[in-house]
Amino acid sequence: MGTCVSAKERRYEMPNEKIPYKIYLEESEMPTHYYNLRADMEKKPAPLLHPGTGEPLKFEDMQAIFCDELIKQELDEETRYIPIPDEIRDFYKMYRPSPLVRAYCLEERLGTPAKIYYKFEGNNTSGSHKLNSAIAQAYYAKKQGLKGVTTETGAGQWGTALSMACSYFELDCKVFMVKVSYEQKPFRREVMRTYGASVTPSPSETTNVGRKILEEFPGTGGSLGCAISEAVEAATSTEGYRYVLGSVLNQVLLHQSVIGLEAKTAMDKYGIKPDVIIGSAGGGSNLGGLIAPFMGEKLRGEADYEIIAVEPASCPSFTRGKYAYDFADTGKVCPLAKMYTLGSGFMPAPNHAGGLRYHGMSPVLSELYDQGMMKAVTAFQTDVFDAAEEFARVEGILPAPESGHAIKAALDEAKKCIETGEEKTILFGLTGTGYFDLTAYKNFNDGTMTDQEPTDEELAKSLAALPKF
Amino acid sequence: MGTCVSAKERRYEMPNEKIPYKIYLEESEMPTHYYNLRADMEKKPAPLLHPGTGEPLKFEDMQAIFCDELIKQELDEETRYIPIPDEIRDFYKMYRPSPLVRAYCLEERLGTPAKIYYKFEGNNTSGSHKLNSAIAQAYYAKKQGLKGVTTETGAGQWGTALSMACSYFELDCKVFMVKVSYEQKPFRREVMRTYGASVTPSPSETTNVGRKILEEFPGTGGSLGCAISEAVEAATSTEGYRYVLGSVLNQVLLHQSVIGLEAKTAMDKYGIKPDVIIGSAGGGSNLGGLIAPFMGEKLRGEADYEIIAVEPASCPSFTRGKYAYDFADTGKVCPLAKMYTLGSGFMPAPNHAGGLRYHGMSPVLSELYDQGMMKAVTAFQTDVFDAAEEFARVEGILPAPESGHAIKAALDEAKKCIETGEEKTILFGLTGTGYFDLTAYKNFNDGTMTDQEPTDEELAKSLAALPKF
Repeated sequence: MGTCVSAKERRYEMPNEKIPYKIYLEESEMPTHYYNLRADMEKKPAPLLHPGTGEPLKFEDMQAIFCDELIKQELDEETRYIPIPDEIRDFYKMYRPSPLVRAYCLEERLGTPAKIYYKFEGNNTSGSHKLNSAIAQAYYAKKQGLKGVTTETGAGQWGTALSMACSYFELDCKVFMVKVSYEQKPFRREVMRTYGASVTPSPSETTNVGRKILEEFPGTGGSLGCAISEAVEAATSTEGYRYVLGSVLNQVLLHQSVIGLEAKTAMDKYGIKPDVIIGSAGGGSNLGGLIAPFMGEKLRGEADYEIIAVEPASCPSFTRGKYAYDFADTGKVCPLAKMYTLGSGFMPAPNHAGGLRYHGMSPVLSELYDQGMMKAVTAFQTDVFDAAEEFARVEGILPAPESGHAIKAALDEAKKCIETGEEKTILFGLTGTGYFDLTAYKNFNDGTMTDQEPTDEELAKSLAALPKF
Repeated sequence: MGTCVSAKERRYEMPNEKIPYKIYLEESEMPTHYYNLRADMEKKPAPLLHPGTGEPLKFEDMQAIFCDELIKQELDEETRYIPIPDEIRDFYKMYRPSPLVRAYCLEERLGTPAKIYYKFEGNNTSGSHKLNSAIAQAYYAKKQGLKGVTTETGAGQWGTALSMACSYFELDCKVFMVKVSYEQKPFRREVMRTYGASVTPSPSETTNVGRKILEEFPGTGGSLGCAISEAVEAATSTEGYRYVLGSVLNQVLLHQSVIGLEAKTAMDKYGIKPDVIIGSAGGGSNLGGLIAPFMGEKLRGEADYEIIAVEPASCPSFTRGKYAYDFADTGKVCPLAKMYTLGSGFMPAPNHAGGLRYHGMSPVLSELYDQGMMKAVTAFQTDVFDAAEEFARVEGILPAPESGHAIKAALDEAKKCIETGEEKTILFGLTGTGYFDLTAYKNFNDGTMTDQEPTDEELAKSLAALPKF
């Protein structure tokens, strides 16, 4: 009979027998403030630098690119808790609080003594956690009286999220979508259109930087770095527009702290303390959000957690990159950030499914990694899809390939516990759903998916081009 | 500023100010029993008839097609509450209770005094309510020691749901998918495959009835009626297999009663009484489930509700069909059911997006409609997509086209309240999400979608072929 018969029986013998499959907080228990992890870091992340002068960026330097309020959040290293405006919280209530799920069925199928929890951020039409920051950024843009925003998107999660947020606040939304995704994911494109956004494949002929990249690399499938350059140019050259970004930036990690805050509140409510916290890491927005309050305790010496970032072998910024100042974009029009990077010219293998393809990593997470506060591991994509499918078949949810990275590492941890007998409590971030990634699942099911990682020579080449700061 | 600023302000002046955006029941408040609406019907739905003899079907007649326990449920007109086995409830806990949502933002955008609630069944990978019955049917098949099940699917929601359920119980699953959907929805196909199902486009060369239909209608895009015939043949000709169906049958409505039971518990908890209850109607599984406990009260004279079925203009069984005995399938191998029908040979316009394409209607709902206990309206597909998009942009969720029918009628009701000033409480069923229906949304966005309805001549022709019983 089904696996959960005995999962259920076993559960009744467990000390925490009252823990439901899904813990939903009340709306009144939702966070009222974002948590600013930087306030608890003794050594702060390095400041953004001006791409021309190499000087730390000031508020005024960023006003042409970002909304004022978001710049304040970007620069604020001291305020521990920043209020979430009611308008944003009202929107959150349409899809939050998100459930913290106890993976009883998965545990039983594995036969592991580990207790596995995941924070599921896929229960919204954008299909991922990206909406948490999209709505905040759209709100501040609207509040400043802007007409619209521009952005880039890779796999399409961020673009969809921003389209939804802009449609809600009746803001114009221009999305530059990495060309390879634009072509492979027509449905992602169509969702954005349904929410009223305009979507342009990048690199495009609509910007100077796009034309320049096309000249240099004709036929390129594009990269996030290219698309960022185009979106920034489109914003700064259009009256009443600003640029918004879905990951990497401090402000984004700030907004995403709602993930970790809700997870921690739910766990505290039931007296659960995770031993290991695992998140997929591309630019770092989900991981940074999930771990925020836990890392805060760790920084303040109040608790200890093992924290693991999982990145694709095809784009391994933590594990094979350098901690150095680098351009945030291929066109080198953006500020420089000190981060683990593969070089702004790095082009990940085109067959890699979905997101997690950015050449750099959040400066906050980069600094924490450098301080030894967290570990990082890589995963090959066929292993990721293997884990995602194993998870889907028993827990029901079809994960995004991005989320599959965290699942892979969580399964590895849970399987280790079978050998050691340890009853570890594992928390991982299930960042989103894979409904728009069925082409990738098809490749996996057909056995045509291959594993890719950059050669040492490729990495050395893109890292050699790091700017000298 | 965003619409919900004032929605929020207005909410604070309302008497029921404590009602959250989303009401989630506790797992302990989930139904422990299915509610069998037939027990409260004085005049019962007419029995299924043997396609050969025209006699009412007995338990033994159905054993070759259906699982024993499901036949018992199909025939049981007396037991009001039927226990939900723990194994099924455990699975439900992975995605239920589903939220009852107060559409505050939609109300505000419309400027209506109406209070709009929807029961959202799309928060699971199958993307719809179909999973509620799929897991029950898979459970009883497994319990009987069967190897696998066969079924048909149109839009793909049911096939996906059944694939998930079978994968959970490690049952084999053979899906016959209406050819036009098979071709238009490769991703639906791929989800089923990811969950381990085999998917065959119907009509196919793999069955006698499929070959016969292909001979008669070469190049046909297929219909649910055809696919049912093939699935039944595949089940009855294979040792250890049975056939399962996602709608129409009494047992399916029984399982779907969890929708209405949860909705009613949530409403009762907050002292909400709906005036109007609206559901999309194809075979009737969602509508039948949503209204079950409310209709029960109405039948027992304990309360009154206005109940509205919304069907596509392209497949209008309630509004333009006949209440008569008809074959459940095109191949005429299935039992006869007394129902509102367009004739088992009716082929809905091929351009209609998604589901709600079945020629008949649940016998339970047909009988209730005949008794005047509910109304029915039709909607044209461009109006449905218009309503779906209006809903998506303000409430976030991208609805399935099927669900769009109920949304259209709910918006009409809410807009009427603007004129009349009535503060009606509207409850509708948001049956699922449209993530796999982006081709249809694209047609709508591109302006290439057209409205279709059968001519009187077409209907007269298919109705003339009704069997004489």
